[in-house]
Amino acid sequence: MDDEKALASFLKNFASIQAPKILIHGGGKIATKIGDRLGIESNYIDGRRITDAPTRDLVTMVYGGLLNKQIVAQLQTQHCNAIGVTGADGNLLKAVKRPVGKIDYGFVGDITPGDVNSTFLYFLLKQNVVPVFAPLTHAAGEILNTNADTIASVLAILIFCFEKEGVLKDVNDSKSVIPNLNTALYEKLLKEGSFHDGILPKLENAFAAIRSGVKEVLIGEHTHLIANTGYETKGTLITA
Amino acid sequence: MDDEKALASFLKNFASIQAPKILIHGGGKIATKIGDRLGIESNYIDGRRITDAPTRDLVTMVYGGLLNKQIVAQLQTQHCNAIGVTGADGNLLKAVKRPVGKIDYGFVGDITPGDVNSTFLYFLLKQNVVPVFAPLTHAAGEILNTNADTIASVLAILIFCFEKEGVLKDVNDSKSVIPNLNTALYEKLLKEGSFHDGILPKLENAFAAIRSGVKEVLIGEHTHLIANTGYETKGTLITA
Repeated sequence: MDDEKALASFLKNFASIQAPKILIHGGGKIATKIGDRLGIESNYIDGRRITDAPTRDLVTMVYGGLLNKQIVAQLQTQHCNAIGVTGADGNLLKAVKRPVGKIDYGFVGDITPGDVNSTFLYFLLKQNVVPVFAPLTHAAGEILNTNADTIASVLAILIFCFEKEGVLKDVNDSKSVIPNLNTALYEKLLKEGSFHDGILPKLENAFAAIRSGVKEVLIGEHTHLIANTGYETKGTLITA
Repeated sequence: MDDEKALASFLKNFASIQAPKILIHGGGKIATKIGDRLGIESNYIDGRRITDAPTRDLVTMVYGGLLNKQIVAQLQTQHCNAIGVTGADGNLLKAVKRPVGKIDYGFVGDITPGDVNSTFLYFLLKQNVVPVFAPLTHAAGEILNTNADTIASVLAILIFCFEKEGVLKDVNDSKSVIPNLNTALYEKLLKEGSFHDGILPKLENAFAAIRSGVKEVLIGEHTHLIANTGYETKGTLITA
C-alpha cells in the first residue's frame, strides 16, 4: 500500500483477472503518519496494537475512506467495476467485539466464516461488481478494526464445482454425499480405499488449499452452490 | 451531521421508511476540524471553497470513510441494510472534473442525471439494500468533491408507475406516448384539452416535484421502468 507505483501495477494485474474476484486491502504506514499529524498515539501492549476510540476513527477514515476509495477509483479506470466496502456495508461482515481478557484490544472485531453475508456477496459478484474490502467490520452500530489477512481467510471459501452433489461415500449411490470432511476423516477413508479415482485430485487440491490457510472448501454440484448462500448448501464441506 | 443526537434520531426515522430509499449525506464541520488538526488550510475564492489535493484527500477520508461508515453502522443496528458508497463505487456517479475557467475549483466533480449507473442502483434497491452516498464522485481514476444537494437532485428522478406506457396524446391509442414533456408543452396541451382526466393528477404532481427541485419525473408502465436503466426506458420523461 505504501509504494504508489507497485500498487498501480498490482491493480492493473488484478483488474485483468477474468473471473469473479474480491480484493482485501490493509493499511500500510499512512494511517500511522496521519495519526501522528492528528496527535493520535499508537499504543501497543506486548507488541500488539490497541485500537482505542481515536485510533478506530483514524483507521475508519484512512482505510475505509482514503485508501479504499483511491483503490476503487483506480480500478474503475481499468474497467473493473469495483465497489469499496467495509464489513458494515451490506452487513457483509458482522463481527464480535473482542472480549476484554488480560488485554483490552479496544475496538477490534473477531469474525468467523459464518459472519459473512454470502448472499449479498454472491449477488455483487454475479453483477460483475468487484468488492474491495477495507479491513473493518462492525458490531452493535460500531466500526471495528479487523486484520486484513483474517478477513481474507474468512472470505476464502474455495468452491469446487463439479457434476456430482458432493464427495460420495459410494460412487454408485448419488445420495451418499459426505457432508463434512476433515483431515482425520479424509486420511481414514483414504486408507480404507473409499474414494474413487475421479475425486482424488479434487480432494488433494482441497486439502492443499486448507493447509495453505483457506478456511473451508466446498465441493458440490455447481447449480446448487451458486444458487445458495454457501452455508446452507448441499455438498461436502472440507475443513482442517 | 454535527449534532450526534439529531443524527441518531434522523437515522432511526429514515430506517423506518418502508420503501426503497437512498440517503445522501454531506460533511458538516468535522472535515474542517480534522483539516485544522492536519494543517490543511481551507481556501476560498469569492466565498466558494477550493478543493486542492490535500482537501480532496481530507474529504475522501472524512466523508467517504468516517461519516459514511458511522452512518452505515448505525443504520445496520436499525435493521436497515445500508451500503455506504461514493460515486466511484460500482461506478454509481461518474463525473466531469470542473473545467478551469476564471476560477480553478480544484478536484470538484460536476454531474448530470445521465452519469448515474441506474442499472446497479436499481439492483441494490431490489435487494433491499439502502445506498448511503457520501458527497464524492469520480473521474479518470480520481475522487472528486461534489455537493450533496447536487447529488440528491441528480438522483431524485421520480418514477411514477401506472398501467399505461406513458402519457398518451390520444387516450384511445396506447402507441401515442409523448416521450418528453416540459412545462411549456404541458401548458400548451393543457389549454388544448389534450389530456384525459385520469392523467391530470399525475401530471400535476409531476410538475409540482419539478418545481420543488426534482430534475426529472418518469411516467410509465411499472414493469418497463423497473426492468430498465431509466434513461433508455419507455415512458414519458418530464422535465422543467
